[in-house]
Amino acid sequence: MNLVIIAIACGVIALLYGILTSQQVLRASPGNQRMVEVAGAIQEGARAYLRRQYTTIAIVGVIVAALVFVFLGGLSAVAFLIGAILSGVAGFIGMNISVRANVRTAEAARTSLQSGLTVAFRAGAVTGLLVAGLALLAIAVLFWYLVGPGGYAPNDRAVVTALTALALGASLVSIFARLGGGIFTKAADVGADLVGKVEAGIPEDDPRNPAVIADNVGDNVGDCAGMAADLFETYVVTVGITMVSIALAIGASPLLLPLMGLPLLIGGVCIITSIIGTYMVRLGAKESIMGALYKGFWTATILAIPAIYAASVYALGDLSQTITTKGGLSFPAINLVWVSIVGLAVTALIVWITEYYTGTNYRPVKSIAKASQTGHGTNVIQGLAISLESTALPTIVIIAGVIVSFQLAGPLGVAFAASAMLALAGMVVALDAYGPVTDNAGGIAEMSGLEEDVRKKTDALDAVGNTTKAVTKGYAIGSAGLAALVLFGAYTADLQEFGAEIGVNADLNALFSLSNPYVIVGLLLGALLPYLFGAMGMTAVGRAGGAVVEEVREQFRNNPGIMDGTSRPDYARTVDLVTKAAIREMILPSLLPVLAPIVVYFGISLVAGDRAQGLAAVGALLLGVIVSGLFVAISMTSGGGAWDNAKKYIEDGNYGGKGSEAHKAAVTGDTVGDPYKDTAGPAVNPMIKITNIVALLLLAALAAQGAAH
Amino acid sequence: MNLVIIAIACGVIALLYGILTSQQVLRASPGNQRMVEVAGAIQEGARAYLRRQYTTIAIVGVIVAALVFVFLGGLSAVAFLIGAILSGVAGFIGMNISVRANVRTAEAARTSLQSGLTVAFRAGAVTGLLVAGLALLAIAVLFWYLVGPGGYAPNDRAVVTALTALALGASLVSIFARLGGGIFTKAADVGADLVGKVEAGIPEDDPRNPAVIADNVGDNVGDCAGMAADLFETYVVTVGITMVSIALAIGASPLLLPLMGLPLLIGGVCIITSIIGTYMVRLGAKESIMGALYKGFWTATILAIPAIYAASVYALGDLSQTITTKGGLSFPAINLVWVSIVGLAVTALIVWITEYYTGTNYRPVKSIAKASQTGHGTNVIQGLAISLESTALPTIVIIAGVIVSFQLAGPLGVAFAASAMLALAGMVVALDAYGPVTDNAGGIAEMSGLEEDVRKKTDALDAVGNTTKAVTKGYAIGSAGLAALVLFGAYTADLQEFGAEIGVNADLNALFSLSNPYVIVGLLLGALLPYLFGAMGMTAVGRAGGAVVEEVREQFRNNPGIMDGTSRPDYARTVDLVTKAAIREMILPSLLPVLAPIVVYFGISLVAGDRAQGLAAVGALLLGVIVSGLFVAISMTSGGGAWDNAKKYIEDGNYGGKGSEAHKAAVTGDTVGDPYKDTAGPAVNPMIKITNIVALLLLAALAAQGAAH
Repeated sequence: MNLVIIAIACGVIALLYGILTSQQVLRASPGNQRMVEVAGAIQEGARAYLRRQYTTIAIVGVIVAALVFVFLGGLSAVAFLIGAILSGVAGFIGMNISVRANVRTAEAARTSLQSGLTVAFRAGAVTGLLVAGLALLAIAVLFWYLVGPGGYAPNDRAVVTALTALALGASLVSIFARLGGGIFTKAADVGADLVGKVEAGIPEDDPRNPAVIADNVGDNVGDCAGMAADLFETYVVTVGITMVSIALAIGASPLLLPLMGLPLLIGGVCIITSIIGTYMVRLGAKESIMGALYKGFWTATILAIPAIYAASVYALGDLSQTITTKGGLSFPAINLVWVSIVGLAVTALIVWITEYYTGTNYRPVKSIAKASQTGHGTNVIQGLAISLESTALPTIVIIAGVIVSFQLAGPLGVAFAASAMLALAGMVVALDAYGPVTDNAGGIAEMSGLEEDVRKKTDALDAVGNTTKAVTKGYAIGSAGLAALVLFGAYTADLQEFGAEIGVNADLNALFSLSNPYVIVGLLLGALLPYLFGAMGMTAVGRAGGAVVEEVREQFRNNPGIMDGTSRPDYARTVDLVTKAAIREMILPSLLPVLAPIVVYFGISLVAGDRAQGLAAVGALLLGVIVSGLFVAISMTSGGGAWDNAKKYIEDGNYGGKGSEAHKAAVTGDTVGDPYKDTAGPAVNPMIKITNIVALLLLAALAAQGAAH
Repeated sequence: MNLVIIAIACGVIALLYGILTSQQVLRASPGNQRMVEVAGAIQEGARAYLRRQYTTIAIVGVIVAALVFVFLGGLSAVAFLIGAILSGVAGFIGMNISVRANVRTAEAARTSLQSGLTVAFRAGAVTGLLVAGLALLAIAVLFWYLVGPGGYAPNDRAVVTALTALALGASLVSIFARLGGGIFTKAADVGADLVGKVEAGIPEDDPRNPAVIADNVGDNVGDCAGMAADLFETYVVTVGITMVSIALAIGASPLLLPLMGLPLLIGGVCIITSIIGTYMVRLGAKESIMGALYKGFWTATILAIPAIYAASVYALGDLSQTITTKGGLSFPAINLVWVSIVGLAVTALIVWITEYYTGTNYRPVKSIAKASQTGHGTNVIQGLAISLESTALPTIVIIAGVIVSFQLAGPLGVAFAASAMLALAGMVVALDAYGPVTDNAGGIAEMSGLEEDVRKKTDALDAVGNTTKAVTKGYAIGSAGLAALVLFGAYTADLQEFGAEIGVNADLNALFSLSNPYVIVGLLLGALLPYLFGAMGMTAVGRAGGAVVEEVREQFRNNPGIMDGTSRPDYARTVDLVTKAAIREMILPSLLPVLAPIVVYFGISLVAGDRAQGLAAVGALLLGVIVSGLFVAISMTSGGGAWDNAKKYIEDGNYGGKGSEAHKAAVTGDTVGDPYKDTAGPAVNPMIKITNIVALLLLAALAAQGAAH
């Protein structure tokens, strides 16, 4: 249990880092009266949004908690609530620091680029380390309680179910936060751009635009709160289910507890390497902002290798000893270090590939910019081609990672690789949460009429934010894919272990064979989910964006003073409208992955007249949703990022620069890419995992029912 | 063998129908001098394209035939060549009649709408019935020869392999024709539109546009020759592999030969019902063109039910007798009639759903048109949302079809359902091939300066062509999906039957279990193929279209007389350029599905150190490509059709009509949809099947190697 306590200590260190760093950020000057005013409006809007979102989530959460209580018992219900609440807390605190750091970044940028970078990155690091720290604490404390004071064996069914329920809590908040935040940010963005830039001809972030505050709020609720909830969830799910997999694979053995503690310890030591990494973020002689951020990332990643090795030695002692699973697989303990390095390598490669597909220096983005010369249509065609193409390399990296880790340590190898990948979440979220801070800083500079050269510095900081946001999304979907495979592995292992309890004694291989038509049906249904979900997300943005357009047009019409600058637009009304629309639109798509496994189980069981076939179809559904979701999510996020930067590339003076016909075409591409990369694409991540978690809990519920009869 | 001979007779009837109807079409007047001239240019361009395409295919074909000869023997090589040549013949004749009927349709439209419709539909019917007739003849004659004079048992490995090799021949031509034709038609279209409509401001089909002939040629090589090759292939593959599945499932039994002959007989009787259907295509009192075409379709479909029943009684005698497979499954013979009806129902439902998603009367198209009001970006966003959404209902229909047919007659049920679906191919291709004829008729009317009201009639005929083209694509992908499932079933059945021959004795269920990581790897790799293939197709159109733009601009620059109308543009040079570009661009993507199974087999066998795992990964690859390809193809074809008709809907006077801002946005959507629906999307069909066929032949080749050692 020492392992677990050390992990808990590391989690606490992350929280302390968060508190201290927040204080540093808040000590910085928030600038002049006007800046404070603008930032205040953004803060107020963000608070209003979060209040309403959390109220809605709380209602759904209480219902789900009640269901969990009824079907799975009190322990699981509590675990569920812990997961949900901590996920909410991570998003809430991250967002709070973000909307305070934005104005301080703008003010600091008046001094120097380095000062602006420092404030913005520190704010991101607070969110990042809170996410990793709280996630680690959630699992470690729960596990410590269950196995210590709770008196359960580490591989007791109750522990497995509680860890899964914890993951469900995190997932539920995550899907709402991702989808709600995604719809909010893009509806506000599309609405503000369409009426502001296109119809009224006023620039981005002009204070006369009634949707400008909503737009800035959106950056925070989408990229900061949304991403924080997403990676909190992936972290909890991956580490939690890795522990579940270990419990199912190892069984009673003196190695069981050290092995189950190891993922926690790896998470812990990587928090420390991430903290060290944050101190490496400094501009060099070339003043490359991306270079400064990468210094932090690479430090955290490279230090993670010896740290993981040391953690493994501490946990398992002799790394040449053989680990044997119940299935009869044997491998030397050192292989767990190797697969962790595979996880780190997958992370690094995906970061690199995503940068290739979304950076302005490479072929993909340039090809879209070039195609913009011949019009809107060719821009979109090329963008779609790139979005399809961008799925290939990440998939191949993931496949290679799966094969190598499987060969080194079987299914546990894949689980440890995924855990190591997630161990870097603190650093990666820091890079991501940096984005909305700088984006807002630019907006505040513009709205408060700061000097031209301040806006230039915030623009430079913001341009990098686009890349880090894209890169984080690549990481998030890549890790979600691996996590989902671990979840799927847990589903089959669970069925193998506890199948008898629910009265399913069929040959699992025959059941899960590709020749079983219900497996094919399940795969097709699973593959359908991301498409349907994506369609719903895109339509929601369209609908909510349309409402913003109407609202802004109405404000311009009823209050002509806005355009003269003699009268203030009613920012709050727009924020309120987008909030209501986003919350309304997020409900239905979020229910899709929750209900799908349940409906498929009962539907196919009924049609086939065999509950085993229902479970086979659900298993295939899980794999179908992973296989299809991975491609949908990667194509959307990378394609969207590429469109965004193709516009930036043209704005940098290529192909006619700002205002040219090519630029107009590139703006269209960017608009199309927005809901792709910020709403539908990223929301696929929690969708994939929630489907898998619900399926796991379905097994647990069936087992509980079986035991009751 | 009587069954087979009757089927051959039906095939001959289809050919006779084709010859007689062609003569009727050719007897119609080709109009005035100018019209003959324009049509001559289109004919010449089409011939030039086909000559070059077939030359390239011939080179590849000879190489593949040599490989088939070496690895699978002479019989298979001959079967391969028959499949390839007949597929080419079907496309060639269809295209020849199409480029002659276009001018005659324009001329007939001067008399009345009914006359125009008659000529255009008859031309389509020639192509349709030639496709069905030649496909049926190819399989039936080959089978008759092998089992009769050849002296093979119907379930001999040689028969199985020869039928698969026949399918490969058809597939190879199909993928080249689909992709080459698709790239040609859209490169010409995009190029002609971008420079003509947008830059030079001249209307569609203006004779001053140097790309106008290429554009008209493109309609024929894409929708006529491409679709003909596609459905020829699906027909051969489905009926052929259904027979293979029967051979593998039934084994030596007096029912074997009648059962293997039944799909041929069903194909034969449905040719007769299709011919009857073609005579029902007549305008009613309301002058609804779509109504007239549907009369033909419904007649053929509804008459197919008693025809299939009668065929089954003739083939099997007592339909209450029990059919038992080697796997131990039993079902009454009448169930084969029921599953055939399921196949017909799937066809009807997919036609209906596709019309819903692409017709101007329903929500999807209207929603895209509405979104066009707020700009290019929102048009494309809504179009993408619809394209994602449009996958749901067809998938659910296919899933329901699979479940019901499986429950009625196991894997054979799915095969028979697919065969029945394909039996209507003659009628469906007739509807599709009608499209390019009317499209060209409009172009010819415009270019030869015919009266305004003639253009109105050809426009009315053409508008319906858009819907029929979309509907055919829905049918083509739906049937391809079912056919691919039948192919996949044959792959596993083959491995079960002949696994020992290639030294793979592993438990197939364990091998193909979703828990096997190589299955997951295979699924992911399979899912990747349609994305990569789609990206290549889209990029190819972009590149070739760009070349057309350059060429047209150059002609305008060097020959200012073109715009004044004092000088003729050099149409042939543009046709030649597009031809070369299309042929060049089609090679690489076409090789992807051919090589993928081979590379995956050898790669995974090597990595896993086990050939059985290689075969497991290939099996999963097949299913992955089906699962992912189905969604990619449906979303692209339906989305593209919806974008096209959203433009038409606005042109009909909604949201500001032609020339409005909404119209401009809708033109962008249409441009984006073009390569989606006419290049990348439809080419996914043959891609899915060719992957599966290559895998089947890989098994045969491995068996031949195994036997040799």
